[in-house]
Amino acid sequence: MNLASGLRASLVALCCLLASWPLAAQGQSAAPKGWACPPCDLPCDAVVHDKAGVCHGCGMALVQAPKKVAILIFDGVEIIDYTGPYEMFGAAGFQVFTVAATRHPVKTAMGMVVVPAYTFADAPRADVLVIPGGGVNVASAHADTLRYIKDTAAQAQHTLSVCNGAFILAQTGLLDGLTATTTRGNLQGLAKRHPKVKVVGDRRYVDNGKIITAAGLSAGIDGALHVIERLMGAEAATQVATYEEYAWKAGSEPGR
Amino acid sequence: MNLASGLRASLVALCCLLASWPLAAQGQSAAPKGWACPPCDLPCDAVVHDKAGVCHGCGMALVQAPKKVAILIFDGVEIIDYTGPYEMFGAAGFQVFTVAATRHPVKTAMGMVVVPAYTFADAPRADVLVIPGGGVNVASAHADTLRYIKDTAAQAQHTLSVCNGAFILAQTGLLDGLTATTTRGNLQGLAKRHPKVKVVGDRRYVDNGKIITAAGLSAGIDGALHVIERLMGAEAATQVATYEEYAWKAGSEPGR
Repeated sequence: MNLASGLRASLVALCCLLASWPLAAQGQSAAPKGWACPPCDLPCDAVVHDKAGVCHGCGMALVQAPKKVAILIFDGVEIIDYTGPYEMFGAAGFQVFTVAATRHPVKTAMGMVVVPAYTFADAPRADVLVIPGGGVNVASAHADTLRYIKDTAAQAQHTLSVCNGAFILAQTGLLDGLTATTTRGNLQGLAKRHPKVKVVGDRRYVDNGKIITAAGLSAGIDGALHVIERLMGAEAATQVATYEEYAWKAGSEPGR
Repeated sequence: MNLASGLRASLVALCCLLASWPLAAQGQSAAPKGWACPPCDLPCDAVVHDKAGVCHGCGMALVQAPKKVAILIFDGVEIIDYTGPYEMFGAAGFQVFTVAATRHPVKTAMGMVVVPAYTFADAPRADVLVIPGGGVNVASAHADTLRYIKDTAAQAQHTLSVCNGAFILAQTGLLDGLTATTTRGNLQGLAKRHPKVKVVGDRRYVDNGKIITAAGLSAGIDGALHVIERLMGAEAATQVATYEEYAWKAGSEPGR
């Protein structure tokens, strides 16, 4: 390889690298940030503050940190339900991580094996919680899972269910009195099982403010982009959708 | 819980289960099948035959088996690039598995940890090979990876690259003389690096027959649906897209 071709190869490699880099790392979108103390191994590590200042736990000056997205996973979780949102939040510059009941590898629907990043016991405090669907029967009857969802949703800015993940979320009672959606084939089932939830089937996602429910499978991508829109604005969310080469328009609750 | 509510809960649970079950398992689409001998621990286990008969390796009568999709994964692989196709092929009833250079867990772009189902040394023969993108520089210069792709593509019915996975595929020489596409931001880079490839940026995927290349990120979903269309027909592929609540139309090479 001569100097010219070596330089060209290096430039092309750099170009590839940049083109596959999350938008936030390219400086094309402002990653949403909170304020936290530098890691100090005290419980205050998990506390996210809205503005600059000093940590009351350890006394250190707060620094800016990307907002965190916790994605619940469990045996039988549907792949696209959680990986679609994972990709969108990641591209927007959020810190995304999977959370499960234990550290044991999770086997998704269709057989992919994923090692959870955290357990309910040690997961960082999340700004956004994603509850995917799939084989939900065990998770929606699992006391520790429901407790983690309730505790996390209470302090998160948004909780997003995808597909029949709405059944897990509904089981916590957090959907009572709200309007929600789920997979096309599960609309009647959700309404029958949770009569306090107003179930609708005409929208790709439904926004109740803190709690957002997406329709089935690929609709989790739209739901995640909507959460990004809520947190970062329409321009940033559109930029992520364009980067992901995904047809999406800012604006609430499109039809399906 | 009384008998009526117990019965209702069981019916709802069954409904959830069915609604989240792959289409093929619901009998709503005919999973594409080949013929293979029942597992016998001989090398002929990996051979897929086009029609019924007797295995020349072990002598057993061949039985029908779902077609297999191998998905290459590597450190830095982009999540949506490989999980979008995984979901689509899985919902269509294919047997989908991940393959990596070693059994060591792979860390994707954005930090998800995945345990490969197989290594290059022990992966079953695949009918479809998927080559995703992401941080591709190491994979596209890795001799074992390129050899696995060449060997697998030689006997597979279709090889699908997604996003800048086209750079890995091009490095094998298999794209030489063909028309191909990649991520929007990588079109010029691919053309410069691989001048024997005719790079186009006007389509969401490009079909050369055996070799199909998809555009960036979410376009892998469209590429996978197109491969399903090629193998199972437009009706089956449309049924998968509908089930996945994904806007997709049968017919080749849509614009982007």
